[in-house]
Amino acid sequence: MSDGLTLLSENKCFGGTQQRYSHYSKYLNSEAIFSVFMPPVSTPTVGVVLWLSGLTCNDQNFVTKAGAQRVAAELGLIIVCPDTSPRGEGVANDEAYDLGQGAGFYVDATERPWSDHFKMFSYINIELIDIIKERFSDGKKVAISGHSMGGHGALISALKATEHYISVSAFAPIVNPVACPWGQKALAAYLGENEEAWREYDACELLNMRSAAFTLPILIDQGASDEFLDTQCLTKPIESASNLGLIDIRYQNGYDHSYFFVSSFIEDHLRFHAEHLSAM
Amino acid sequence: MSDGLTLLSENKCFGGTQQRYSHYSKYLNSEAIFSVFMPPVSTPTVGVVLWLSGLTCNDQNFVTKAGAQRVAAELGLIIVCPDTSPRGEGVANDEAYDLGQGAGFYVDATERPWSDHFKMFSYINIELIDIIKERFSDGKKVAISGHSMGGHGALISALKATEHYISVSAFAPIVNPVACPWGQKALAAYLGENEEAWREYDACELLNMRSAAFTLPILIDQGASDEFLDTQCLTKPIESASNLGLIDIRYQNGYDHSYFFVSSFIEDHLRFHAEHLSAM
Repeated sequence: MSDGLTLLSENKCFGGTQQRYSHYSKYLNSEAIFSVFMPPVSTPTVGVVLWLSGLTCNDQNFVTKAGAQRVAAELGLIIVCPDTSPRGEGVANDEAYDLGQGAGFYVDATERPWSDHFKMFSYINIELIDIIKERFSDGKKVAISGHSMGGHGALISALKATEHYISVSAFAPIVNPVACPWGQKALAAYLGENEEAWREYDACELLNMRSAAFTLPILIDQGASDEFLDTQCLTKPIESASNLGLIDIRYQNGYDHSYFFVSSFIEDHLRFHAEHLSAM
Repeated sequence: MSDGLTLLSENKCFGGTQQRYSHYSKYLNSEAIFSVFMPPVSTPTVGVVLWLSGLTCNDQNFVTKAGAQRVAAELGLIIVCPDTSPRGEGVANDEAYDLGQGAGFYVDATERPWSDHFKMFSYINIELIDIIKERFSDGKKVAISGHSMGGHGALISALKATEHYISVSAFAPIVNPVACPWGQKALAAYLGENEEAWREYDACELLNMRSAAFTLPILIDQGASDEFLDTQCLTKPIESASNLGLIDIRYQNGYDHSYFFVSSFIEDHLRFHAEHLSAM
């Protein structure tokens, strides 16, 4: 394609099309892959949901496991799923599952060896958003959602790049990464030891730093039996964050951190976003 | 558990429970794993759908990719997903994806080295059916379905073990394995060169050998853009098979052989089975 996208695969799904693309990303300084679900051409498109995945995931986990295409096809939602980090030869990595490839944490790294490629915040909120608007959404608006590390990514994207998004939702998000082991490890590696820099990528800290209420609608689902609730997701700090506007936090009894949880409630999130997107 | 089942995992999903069990199988002469979705306890159970997966799959592919739990929870369907072959140390295998582990073809092998463990037909239609009835279904009836090699497995199970099943459905089934490369390779390896033995595991041959019409309701979905339609699935021979009763064969425009196809139509299959199960 003339816009630099290469179509890797295309599968008909619920009358729409599940697509996968590769392209050269200038922010990631490498090839990047993302997936797109396009609803049936017969369904009027109401907008885009940009989905950010969690640790160890790539662009495929949500596509194959969440069961989102059915409702997206019904509502006329485009769903875009990027990878969770740069990848490939020459890209720094770590043996741990929670650092490096598959664990970009949606920040722009400033520290070596990560700073050559790990610019996920700019990739998502500048480069990919531009591709979505130019290539897929026909000017329609964008909502953002994600799971775990991707829930963190969705919240900080909405808080820092507010102009791009209509609504934000998250499943078991890491709401306060400066205060949990996953966040502390990643932020120290990518941003260095100065914790002031970490606060710029922490949803609770960003809310508390704001001078006015954050007015985008927020929906958060958190499994009450999530094995990471008390140690990594935390959740409580966002309930008490300052300058919160429209937020709905739901604890779901018996649900854990898995895609069985995400798939059970993705329909609610897509309907939430479609409502706000179609009201624009 | 006293019945020899070990619960490996349990995840809440759509108000029900996605479970995974291991047990010692006497027919497979090895440990075996299967998955079970139990609908919410508040939903009256109408019966069981036994799902057989295709080449390279294990018990997890359908569980994670088909998006079946939502409708199963609504309808009160238990879904049981076995593995596609025996596995593990001491179990024969082959480097090819279409023979050995992950490719049991739902037959009882008579040829070495396969005959020590590869007794998938008896495992499904004697051992697993007994476990389902004793442990999970509370006397409720069973329907059977599957994809590709598993669609073949569902059809031959319904044709040869008719007493166990209420209805049968399949996605892109290998309807005539004696006439396609996947089937010929597997049947020759597992059953030897005598093609008379192959016919006992071929849906079209079994239908043509019957003296009376096969009366279980059958639903088949076949992607019209399936890359394996003309070479492996074939489909046409079952349309013209003798002694067919209630069969509905649907060619779905634009769909391929993937789980994007299965997930798009699984709701229809579950509603088809629930209707027949609840009419009992």
